[in-house]
Amino acid sequence: MIRVGVFGATGYAGKECVRLLESHPSARVAFTTGSGGAHLAHEAGLDQAADAYLLALPHGVSAKYAASLRAARPDATVIDLSGDLRLATAAAYKHWYGHEHPAPQLLDGTPYGLTEVYRDRLPGARLVSNPGCYATSVLLPLVPLLREALVDPDDIVVDAKSGATGAGRAPKEELLFCEVADDLSAYSPGRTHRHVAEIEQVLHETSGKTVALTFCPHLLPVKRGILSALYLRSAASPAALAQALRTFYAAAPFVRIVDAPPKLSDVVLTNDCRISVHAAAPGRVVVFSAIDNLVKGAAGQAIQNLNRCLGWDERAGLPGGNA
Amino acid sequence: MIRVGVFGATGYAGKECVRLLESHPSARVAFTTGSGGAHLAHEAGLDQAADAYLLALPHGVSAKYAASLRAARPDATVIDLSGDLRLATAAAYKHWYGHEHPAPQLLDGTPYGLTEVYRDRLPGARLVSNPGCYATSVLLPLVPLLREALVDPDDIVVDAKSGATGAGRAPKEELLFCEVADDLSAYSPGRTHRHVAEIEQVLHETSGKTVALTFCPHLLPVKRGILSALYLRSAASPAALAQALRTFYAAAPFVRIVDAPPKLSDVVLTNDCRISVHAAAPGRVVVFSAIDNLVKGAAGQAIQNLNRCLGWDERAGLPGGNA
Amino acid sequence: MIRVGVFGATGYAGKECVRLLESHPSARVAFTTGSGGAHLAHEAGLDQAADAYLLALPHGVSAKYAASLRAARPDATVIDLSGDLRLATAAAYKHWYGHEHPAPQLLDGTPYGLTEVYRDRLPGARLVSNPGCYATSVLLPLVPLLREALVDPDDIVVDAKSGATGAGRAPKEELLFCEVADDLSAYSPGRTHRHVAEIEQVLHETSGKTVALTFCPHLLPVKRGILSALYLRSAASPAALAQALRTFYAAAPFVRIVDAPPKLSDVVLTNDCRISVHAAAPGRVVVFSAIDNLVKGAAGQAIQNLNRCLGWDERAGLPGGNA
Amino acid sequence: MIRVGVFGATGYAGKECVRLLESHPSARVAFTTGSGGAHLAHEAGLDQAADAYLLALPHGVSAKYAASLRAARPDATVIDLSGDLRLATAAAYKHWYGHEHPAPQLLDGTPYGLTEVYRDRLPGARLVSNPGCYATSVLLPLVPLLREALVDPDDIVVDAKSGATGAGRAPKEELLFCEVADDLSAYSPGRTHRHVAEIEQVLHETSGKTVALTFCPHLLPVKRGILSALYLRSAASPAALAQALRTFYAAAPFVRIVDAPPKLSDVVLTNDCRISVHAAAPGRVVVFSAIDNLVKGAAGQAIQNLNRCLGWDERAGLPGGNA
Repeated sequence: MIRVGVFGATGYAGKECVRLLESHPSARVAFTTGSGGAHLAHEAGLDQAADAYLLALPHGVSAKYAASLRAARPDATVIDLSGDLRLATAAAYKHWYGHEHPAPQLLDGTPYGLTEVYRDRLPGARLVSNPGCYATSVLLPLVPLLREALVDPDDIVVDAKSGATGAGRAPKEELLFCEVADDLSAYSPGRTHRHVAEIEQVLHETSGKTVALTFCPHLLPVKRGILSALYLRSAASPAALAQALRTFYAAAPFVRIVDAPPKLSDVVLTNDCRISVHAAAPGRVVVFSAIDNLVKGAAGQAIQNLNRCLGWDERAGLPGGNA
Repeated sequence: MIRVGVFGATGYAGKECVRLLESHPSARVAFTTGSGGAHLAHEAGLDQAADAYLLALPHGVSAKYAASLRAARPDATVIDLSGDLRLATAAAYKHWYGHEHPAPQLLDGTPYGLTEVYRDRLPGARLVSNPGCYATSVLLPLVPLLREALVDPDDIVVDAKSGATGAGRAPKEELLFCEVADDLSAYSPGRTHRHVAEIEQVLHETSGKTVALTFCPHLLPVKRGILSALYLRSAASPAALAQALRTFYAAAPFVRIVDAPPKLSDVVLTNDCRISVHAAAPGRVVVFSAIDNLVKGAAGQAIQNLNRCLGWDERAGLPGGNA
Repeated sequence: MIRVGVFGATGYAGKECVRLLESHPSARVAFTTGSGGAHLAHEAGLDQAADAYLLALPHGVSAKYAASLRAARPDATVIDLSGDLRLATAAAYKHWYGHEHPAPQLLDGTPYGLTEVYRDRLPGARLVSNPGCYATSVLLPLVPLLREALVDPDDIVVDAKSGATGAGRAPKEELLFCEVADDLSAYSPGRTHRHVAEIEQVLHETSGKTVALTFCPHLLPVKRGILSALYLRSAASPAALAQALRTFYAAAPFVRIVDAPPKLSDVVLTNDCRISVHAAAPGRVVVFSAIDNLVKGAAGQAIQNLNRCLGWDERAGLPGGNA
Repeated sequence: MIRVGVFGATGYAGKECVRLLESHPSARVAFTTGSGGAHLAHEAGLDQAADAYLLALPHGVSAKYAASLRAARPDATVIDLSGDLRLATAAAYKHWYGHEHPAPQLLDGTPYGLTEVYRDRLPGARLVSNPGCYATSVLLPLVPLLREALVDPDDIVVDAKSGATGAGRAPKEELLFCEVADDLSAYSPGRTHRHVAEIEQVLHETSGKTVALTFCPHLLPVKRGILSALYLRSAASPAALAQALRTFYAAAPFVRIVDAPPKLSDVVLTNDCRISVHAAAPGRVVVFSAIDNLVKGAAGQAIQNLNRCLGWDERAGLPGGNA
């Protein structure tokens, strides 16, 4: 039974880490940090011994703790759920996040923990950068299709919709119940949302081409779940694309290719990603991808990555899976 | 004060017709049909004298009543809110609706009541076909841009989201509160939704080209409102597109071009359509369009059309307008 | 056309004042105060001439502005929507609100604007205290029954449920969408909610007895509406109680006694209060009362009071009414 | 590993039985009945061998299947989730359910499976009647207080609120999303709801007195959860009542007495019941009780009862518990 410290356990992602760890067969929560309750202050967490640390802290802060923990506990495994370690360079980070990188020395060699895609980079890793929630929902369907050159990397349109936990727990007027309920709003249209950067980076690595993604997120009046619609150019049939995805994910317990468009309720409270492919117009297909933003899009994938780092069954402690 | 008969006043669109007419300065409800309450049977409605009739009946049924009313009350104005009279030919109708057209003789010369676009076809008309809710939200931003050849008709992707009143009031398991709440689902992906037919028909008339629309609707866990995202190819800047829209709609009280993406709550319970244009990626823009599906997408536009037919101020009795 | 200044127009109640005034036939908004947008600072509002002022400010602040306006504009009509002027004495205010009264000189003679109950105190009044939302929903059914001695003042249990706009627009974690959606919570059980004080004060005035109310409010996952259930002891039949209410409210356009339990949707966006009476157990009845907390429970009643003060039809500019 | 047949697995309660059994360590689903999918017809279920049967069928139907299964599989354990076997006599059943009892011979000796209260009646039982959801939420706090004569049985007021899954999955207009969302409605006021009968029956058994309950249920715009407020007369302090409850439930893993009013979200998706006690007015207290209507109020309690019948740890397979 390993001991896990959770930094930032009062936010939605950190709380979800704690909730999921409670039913993990081989890990238990050693301590949590955050304001209020029985939480330690974040700084006090650095003095707590543990075998692994999950960092659910704001960007700009998280990498500092990652650096401190790497120095102080070199044998421990650290999973950073923030955006701090996702981009390959400090320059890219500064461009997208608007400030200097807090620990640029960590960028080199830290795997991007999109588990099913980079599964072989994880065993033995001591530091992993957990992908963004939107990025997870977009890249899981897209990477296999681009690897097989089945879709055109120059013509990718993503219309994504997320539940409000994705916006965090800090009290802001625009996140009040009375502002979100009964409503739908688009935000960060064009290439302005930070997850665009990590998606384009992976698409570049995958296709060898510079990709300019069209991506527009929406805020849904639901608590959990992301449904992304990917509008893609392809000379192949939807059936061929679905088959390529099935082949790629044949051994992946949490990714399932389905026939009907997946709904949020199919995946909420699980670590699953469900994907479907449909004809849209001549030469164009639409691919739907559904995840729970707090599970596969954050805490669940973090634990899945931890499982991989430690050589365990990646399903350990995680709801869902192709049972 | 003219007398208006509302057929199908127990459904959401018909109920909304009645609600809106209650504050119309020059019209009052003469009778309603529908099951239960003080409603007449539909057939009994044919015997009721009125100056205008709003038909909020199922497709396949509505055109029969339109034909009967045209024959029996040639001076009355009939607005058909169903899909029966939207497509130009009985063959197209049979293809999209799956059965023979109930009154093909009505198809010729019945204007498609997208008010702001076909406003000059309405004065004096005795029969108008009211557009579909999705079609209204898509065509209002698209027609002016295509008329000015500012966007590529061969590359149009629409991701649309609608509140559940758009699915009607017939009791179906998939429309129960417990099936819709906390969820989001896509349906009719590809060119399968019936509104695709009327949208493509108008786009063809506008651009002179055969357009194959990529269109995917979603069911939102809200009661009212449609937000459509249109992903378009354009060599022009978003500012130029917005300007073209502003010019086109300069005299239209209900259409407003705005800077930030419109939300459902900006338009719900009004007859307004709000549109914004944003850069998406090089050569591609995203256009958002928001309406209330029951008002501008159904009952409100029906009354707006009635106002135009009768030569009244098109705002009469309608909430919203660029006040 | 009188000019009305709205203080605190960025909160939900103040925003609703502005929204309702937009369709008032005889009043228009002269200025608004609040943070952001085109609002003035509150202090700057004191320099603005107007014929009437609606104060939608926090308690402890509002009475100061009421006092300043009374001094500077003695001919203007001021309606205070806060709790500052509802209790009869500064001592009671200190007990319930926890701090000294900001303007005790205003307490004497300021009518409590429960319009239908104290309608004769309003004509000509220059300062009115607008009742609390819960208080309105409880007192409208209760006062007539107590006046006629039809229910036992010593055994009153009220279970009330309110939409989240009642909790205001200040960003607090417990009011975030993700904390309120899919949930229901009771708060302030026992005689701790501030509205208990004003309810008990009116009940004392009505019955001549000191009443200890059992009152428990709940926070609903809806934006608008209050539904209160009043469990009362009565030797009279539900029909007799309903008749007493019908008699009392015979001339009141906004209060309607109905047969089936009223729902929030029956009254939301109107100034109406709907009340029903039902047998509960031998000797006990349950009375339901539904209002829109932002309309009849705040902005609507404020305008209704303003209408009465100025000698206008009390329905002017207000949605609902026994049409 | 025992085999369990679930009758009525397409309704919400039956579906929840299947969902919970999937993580039961000692039981697995042998077959399901219901319309559609891979479900058997109900009749075909009678031919399927199993060690236990959960009946999530409509009242009037369920007891017939219970009788058939008792006859055909005398060694199997049958838990009936319907209302058919809750009332002690066929006469009471006919009064409350409006038709003859379908299998009156089963009424004698069938324990009422309010697990924590009648836990000693369950071991070895072959047929158990599972309590109603509202009844569970009301009786768990009330029975211990009445047993200790701490509250007045002649003055009990219950205001209960339930999520919409409690109303079942049959498509009815009043359960559509657009009818339930943003709304709250009371129904069955007075002593008309069928759960009143079973509550009063248990209260009579507990107190030796005939109790006339004041009970009013409400339909909430949420999917799951019941929050009941019990307004009770008591000469004892809230602390004393809370202590009596803590003592009674000291060994009960799923019932927890808490200090703050419990919210739905505290118990949803668990088999827990959380209870709090508060001063309301002199001589009166308010007790809140929260459960998940589909878990502790239906499927979870059914499995808890099955666990008890079979001599297992009552927590087996159930989420929640005082861990």
